[in-house]
Amino acid sequence: MSTPRGFTDDERRTWAPMTAVLELLPHRIDAQLLRDENLTHFDYATLSMLALAEGRQMRMSELATGVNATLSRLSHAVSRLEKRGFTQRIATPEDARATTVQLTPDGHRKVIRATPEHVRTVRSLVFEALDAEQRRQLHEITVALLARLDPDQRMLASRMS
Amino acid sequence: MSTPRGFTDDERRTWAPMTAVLELLPHRIDAQLLRDENLTHFDYATLSMLALAEGRQMRMSELATGVNATLSRLSHAVSRLEKRGFTQRIATPEDARATTVQLTPDGHRKVIRATPEHVRTVRSLVFEALDAEQRRQLHEITVALLARLDPDQRMLASRMS
Repeated sequence: MSTPRGFTDDERRTWAPMTAVLELLPHRIDAQLLRDENLTHFDYATLSMLALAEGRQMRMSELATGVNATLSRLSHAVSRLEKRGFTQRIATPEDARATTVQLTPDGHRKVIRATPEHVRTVRSLVFEALDAEQRRQLHEITVALLARLDPDQRMLASRMS
Repeated sequence: MSTPRGFTDDERRTWAPMTAVLELLPHRIDAQLLRDENLTHFDYATLSMLALAEGRQMRMSELATGVNATLSRLSHAVSRLEKRGFTQRIATPEDARATTVQLTPDGHRKVIRATPEHVRTVRSLVFEALDAEQRRQLHEITVALLARLDPDQRMLASRMS
């Protein structure tokens, strides 16, 4: 056998641009946020999730499902955000073993300032590239993929759809 | 303003599962290849591209466009693959300034061995989650996104579509 027995031509036709998007899109979104706000997309998603939560605070475990991450990954990000004064770990009154993360006023100002340019970037790279029908198709396709990637619906995005 | 002025509800509905897929899918594909072959998806793509090339060799610059990467990122990966005996840098006869990468026999055996389980993983996480019509839509959507992400068609995937 001289070449790897792999994808069919038809699969390769779909998978080649898909891998390119998986490679390039997160990089471009990170690049804008890092350049303008010194935040990764993951940092931004964390701050943004907190900004929308009741009292601007969430338990670590809930926040992790909201940003599609393990507790360990989230914990590293929150430590970095805490050093910069954007979040604060506080006790959870109802559960002594749980940790709650509170968005600080500085963290709130940061996410408010970062949002318009981030939204513009996503619109320009994703939404404006597609017509209304394709946006609807993309929603259904990503929901179908999520059902495979997160069959137990541990991530918030899986439960929203 | 108490919450970030951001995506419309409609945009958020599409963007939430999309970011979850962008986060979870590359991680799952990496996890299988790392566990079974100690290769990242990027390593695998590099070896696989070389395996399919004429003479199992490519110029660094061409290989970079094939794996959607900058020369600098590719260079790091190729150095790691070279240490493990899977690739070798050789001179380019027609151009003294260019470097060519050659897949070694060990590298070829590696990619042959790694391919079936990788293909199975991608089929299970992506293709089998979608019907034929959705696979066609996914192709058109990713091609449209690539046109935004890579407007100068520097990446091979942009030229294939």
